[in-house]
Amino acid sequence: MKKFINAVDKVEDQMIQGMVKAYPQYVRKLDCGNVVVRSHKKEGKVALISGGGSGHEPAHGGYVGEGMLDAAVAGAVFTSPTPDQVLEGIKAVATDAGVLMVIKNYTGDVMNFEMAADMARDEGIKVAQVVVNDDVAVKDSLYTVGRRGVAGTVFVHKIAGALAETGADLEAVQAVAQKVIDNVRTMGAAIAPCTVPAAGKPGFELGEDEMEVGIGIHGEPGTHREPLKTADEIVDMLLAQILADLDFAGSEVAVMINSAGATPLMELFILNNRVADVLAEKGVKVYKTLVGEFMTSIEMAGFSISLLKLDSQLKELLDAKADTPGFRA
Amino acid sequence: MKKFINAVDKVEDQMIQGMVKAYPQYVRKLDCGNVVVRSHKKEGKVALISGGGSGHEPAHGGYVGEGMLDAAVAGAVFTSPTPDQVLEGIKAVATDAGVLMVIKNYTGDVMNFEMAADMARDEGIKVAQVVVNDDVAVKDSLYTVGRRGVAGTVFVHKIAGALAETGADLEAVQAVAQKVIDNVRTMGAAIAPCTVPAAGKPGFELGEDEMEVGIGIHGEPGTHREPLKTADEIVDMLLAQILADLDFAGSEVAVMINSAGATPLMELFILNNRVADVLAEKGVKVYKTLVGEFMTSIEMAGFSISLLKLDSQLKELLDAKADTPGFRA
Repeated sequence: MKKFINAVDKVEDQMIQGMVKAYPQYVRKLDCGNVVVRSHKKEGKVALISGGGSGHEPAHGGYVGEGMLDAAVAGAVFTSPTPDQVLEGIKAVATDAGVLMVIKNYTGDVMNFEMAADMARDEGIKVAQVVVNDDVAVKDSLYTVGRRGVAGTVFVHKIAGALAETGADLEAVQAVAQKVIDNVRTMGAAIAPCTVPAAGKPGFELGEDEMEVGIGIHGEPGTHREPLKTADEIVDMLLAQILADLDFAGSEVAVMINSAGATPLMELFILNNRVADVLAEKGVKVYKTLVGEFMTSIEMAGFSISLLKLDSQLKELLDAKADTPGFRA
Repeated sequence: MKKFINAVDKVEDQMIQGMVKAYPQYVRKLDCGNVVVRSHKKEGKVALISGGGSGHEPAHGGYVGEGMLDAAVAGAVFTSPTPDQVLEGIKAVATDAGVLMVIKNYTGDVMNFEMAADMARDEGIKVAQVVVNDDVAVKDSLYTVGRRGVAGTVFVHKIAGALAETGADLEAVQAVAQKVIDNVRTMGAAIAPCTVPAAGKPGFELGEDEMEVGIGIHGEPGTHREPLKTADEIVDMLLAQILADLDFAGSEVAVMINSAGATPLMELFILNNRVADVLAEKGVKVYKTLVGEFMTSIEMAGFSISLLKLDSQLKELLDAKADTPGFRA
């Protein structure tokens, strides 16, 4: 394993500390565990909290800031945070307006966030939740009942965060988060695995000319393996499955071309070149495109395509100001 | 070679097209060659043009937009753009206020940009230039007489671009660009090579526990190879060389922790954790930190540290608004 680290048991701690030292104007770390909150708490608004395993940077800590999250809870790499950690995060950011938890659909995440919410309610905090399940690749997975929550989660952070910033109430913020979830679909593929530091070896192996289609964000298997195709052919395959899952025809969409970590912008742009052409052919109008690292799998080589069907409310909230370490608009 | 591409001879074209299709609100491509300019030309200001080989994305096209560049010229991967390409870029963005070329110090880049400038002057365009040479690793390199221009170039784009946006004249914009160059120092290391698509195989080989210290942004050799050390030890080694080269003590600095492409934020933050601690010990005050992909080498695994010594003018211009695909402030 070749990585720029100091010790496998210090990866998460030193990563979070390094992030907080880079962005003190945005975030601070709670004393108890790897929970990152806004440096300047904003009262009177619904607080958004998200998180999950580490290894998805800039998710989730990178999205803490104006117009997005109020807190992010980081478990060990690819491991759900504990209920206690989530509870500390909730308590640190809770306001009278309540707290919305944005959870990716993984069994451990859902269970631990829900346990934390129950404990927070016992302390008189109003907590609601949404569960993101945007991955169209597989119905169930190694770690999930139902579809997995993947890169589309970032749209939920952005849009629900923008509405929360306006002072909207908890029901409205939850409703718009759910609207994003109902209208976002994602699918990805990978050509090289990542190595969880504590494991010390790659999470899976692929042949020299092989790719994994429908990969999850922890390297979980997707639908199948097949010989590596051209970028255009891969885009066509993934978009076909996304477009078959929800009727995007005639709609305006936001597109996210997300790197799994090691796949460079060079390839993401080549992929987007095809995505843009196919959507134009299909009568799907691209309102905005995001290309980069949004929900990674450490240094996996792979990517995902997300499409979010927009209406006027979602467009306005997508465009609203966001000022965070990992996302600015 | 495993990459998401269609054909090695279409990489640059399809990449630029995919970028322009992602960001039509920011950039458009000239008909002749891979030259990207602002979608909305701003008259009356000094125009900034930069560029170089492809493979450094988001540099340079990603920095075209308000507060940074007016044009970026993209050669083939790791290959200087031709004088004709640069000339087309200059002509497309030139205003009565003149054009400033920001050139990274590589022999081919300097020669071709200077030839283009001569041709532009023949057509009555006022052209000045600066040459960035921030890499403290080596005096001369495979491709360079004198120090190489590397990630510190992005600070030149940002700061000179911000001053140009205010309507400052060519001499002032050139002077502030030169001030950045005089005050920025960079050094990097790599643990895995990248593959130029047209070459089809990695540009160099490293042993399983080996790293290249002082690596260039095209995989050129640095000062030496040695066994991979801890993140903290590597930071200490690079910072020692940077701090020995320019007196930063008592100064405020901007820090850039730049990924060579495949090195994930997880590792960059761990590296920054040490950078922040060392600078604090040395009495160097961090004004702002940037962590991410700014000047990559396709999918090389590696990073660089840049320090920019700031004064009040540079701080103000660093903080000024920038709205480009690859950099927002």
